[in-house]
Amino acid sequence: MQLIHTKQPPIKHPHLIFLGDVTDAIFAKTGMGLKQWQPNKVMGQWRLPGCEVDLGVPDMGIEEAKKSGVKSLVIGIAPIGGQLPEAWIAALKQALEAGLDVISGLHNDLSAMTPLKQSALESGAQIINTRETPQKLPIGTGKKRSGFRLLTVGTDCAVGKKFTALALTQQLKQAGIKADFRATGQTGIMVAGDGIAIDAVVADFLTGTAEMISPDNEHNHWDIIEGQGSLFNPSYSGVSLGLLHGSQPDAIILCHDSSRKSILTCPDYDIPSIQECIDFNLQCARIVNPNCVCIGVSVNTSEMEAHRRQHHLRELSTQLNLPCVDPFTDGTSVFVQAIKDRFKFMGQPPQSNAALPPKPVNGY
Amino acid sequence: MQLIHTKQPPIKHPHLIFLGDVTDAIFAKTGMGLKQWQPNKVMGQWRLPGCEVDLGVPDMGIEEAKKSGVKSLVIGIAPIGGQLPEAWIAALKQALEAGLDVISGLHNDLSAMTPLKQSALESGAQIINTRETPQKLPIGTGKKRSGFRLLTVGTDCAVGKKFTALALTQQLKQAGIKADFRATGQTGIMVAGDGIAIDAVVADFLTGTAEMISPDNEHNHWDIIEGQGSLFNPSYSGVSLGLLHGSQPDAIILCHDSSRKSILTCPDYDIPSIQECIDFNLQCARIVNPNCVCIGVSVNTSEMEAHRRQHHLRELSTQLNLPCVDPFTDGTSVFVQAIKDRFKFMGQPPQSNAALPPKPVNGY
Repeated sequence: MQLIHTKQPPIKHPHLIFLGDVTDAIFAKTGMGLKQWQPNKVMGQWRLPGCEVDLGVPDMGIEEAKKSGVKSLVIGIAPIGGQLPEAWIAALKQALEAGLDVISGLHNDLSAMTPLKQSALESGAQIINTRETPQKLPIGTGKKRSGFRLLTVGTDCAVGKKFTALALTQQLKQAGIKADFRATGQTGIMVAGDGIAIDAVVADFLTGTAEMISPDNEHNHWDIIEGQGSLFNPSYSGVSLGLLHGSQPDAIILCHDSSRKSILTCPDYDIPSIQECIDFNLQCARIVNPNCVCIGVSVNTSEMEAHRRQHHLRELSTQLNLPCVDPFTDGTSVFVQAIKDRFKFMGQPPQSNAALPPKPVNGY
Repeated sequence: MQLIHTKQPPIKHPHLIFLGDVTDAIFAKTGMGLKQWQPNKVMGQWRLPGCEVDLGVPDMGIEEAKKSGVKSLVIGIAPIGGQLPEAWIAALKQALEAGLDVISGLHNDLSAMTPLKQSALESGAQIINTRETPQKLPIGTGKKRSGFRLLTVGTDCAVGKKFTALALTQQLKQAGIKADFRATGQTGIMVAGDGIAIDAVVADFLTGTAEMISPDNEHNHWDIIEGQGSLFNPSYSGVSLGLLHGSQPDAIILCHDSSRKSILTCPDYDIPSIQECIDFNLQCARIVNPNCVCIGVSVNTSEMEAHRRQHHLRELSTQLNLPCVDPFTDGTSVFVQAIKDRFKFMGQPPQSNAALPPKPVNGY
């Protein structure tokens, strides 16, 4: 089931990824995400002098890209504040003049910049901002929807919720289970080609938008929803609760970065314990879905010495009595298995799914 | 401490309250709120044929209002969806032509309506929308601020959170305690002449805006913050948590309507028990302020037979071990006393208030 949320034109591919003069891979996560999850849609990268990031795809300029059939230039760099560098504006202008759409998740409104607007008007190319939200959004109703939903939640923001959701969606499909990734942030939207940046909607419509992102579906279909922020992050907790309540998840996966000691945007706050975070997310989720369960923990162990990882994850699994893996190194097959085990009735005829999962024991 | 949030001109008074042709007092809550809380600012009411609501102030038309020194026409009717009736537009146009500002909390953008825009341009009068939010809003930081904060929270939306906050602010001032009402909705903003409609901000800035609404203040000053929605209302829970976390309250008052059986916007959901709602609000609040306490329960008993009220409230008080009153009939002096008892050190020299309140016992 495809969602048509935006009144905007569709995101055309193949893409040329614009990396500007970025020097640290952490700021190129949109480009890297696209390369990883949609390799067939990425034809090349365009790097300005000084750029030190390499996606491992051919370098090309606008002319070559155009000849190779590229349809859009995707700004592959994470949103930054302030003014755009002159060199970037010139590059984007060149792309628009050549008739390539420009796809952006930046906070800056490119379509309001006169030189870019003019080039787009002249060539007929589109400037698409993935942070732009539909004009008509609903108020949340709390109504039960058909199909299953899993939401990735976190001990903080930027701990692997999008990665986990994308990896799990892929692995569910490989296991023959109907599943869709539901994007709630700009990078996810570029990868999925659809979705709504939930933190960009007017607060009144938070849960209503979340309900819209994972609409009614087939009884054995799973929406794997990209979580945002954390209930324990005082910058984004409102968004996290709105998304949790609107998603009405049947299952959650808790995502955690083992190297994170304090909340990214609020260094005065400690990261909560994984157990506390699972308990609190379930408590909140059960206001709208009393049967919500946690099926596992996704741990980003990239900062951990390689030989310690497996031991750490095994210890955590024992302690929490839940599968704990790093999806980057281990994949997500344990989560697929957990879904199969917990929701055995998936292949059976439609019933009210509220009544089906066994009542959680010991909080899970 | 006055907040200057809007880039808009100030809300001028005295006001003429526009009631249109409204027939039910429930839809005239903005007008009634202004009359009740700012009686000196309300010079008259303007009722169109068919209007059955009476604020008990002189009826007057534009000409008389103008002569009496009225500076603005306030739309005293709760926001409605859809098109505005022709008769209303004509009335608003007449006010603007006479040079009166038009103050509106409607969802409709009056300043985009050509005839109104033109009249305003010609006379120099302003069209002010209290739902319009400042263009530059911050991301929440979670940082501790000086001074005290009390937030009214609810078992649902529309249960008396604004009324309780306004009544308590008035009574605190009468008791010689420094206090300000902090408005977070359109009616509250009209009464206070300042504030931000928290549900109208972009979700990313929810907690940051809430932090801005109750900034650093004197060590013995209380901000009494108007709550919104409910953590148990699936339409607005995200807004409620963002406001709770950004407010970092030292104290909450739980507001409840004794006649409400199910969530107003989500009839599939039962109203939570008062105890459950207090516990959950405190649990959420303590993520940002570990010393937050509940000082009482404000019950709207207007639907209850008069002779049952006091018995009901006494029973509730015993059961919850907290002061429970209907502020409409009983005032809020018990809450003022509870604040004095709980925060005895208020008159003392500034200290970190995080360290001061006694650790809560039994959850309160």
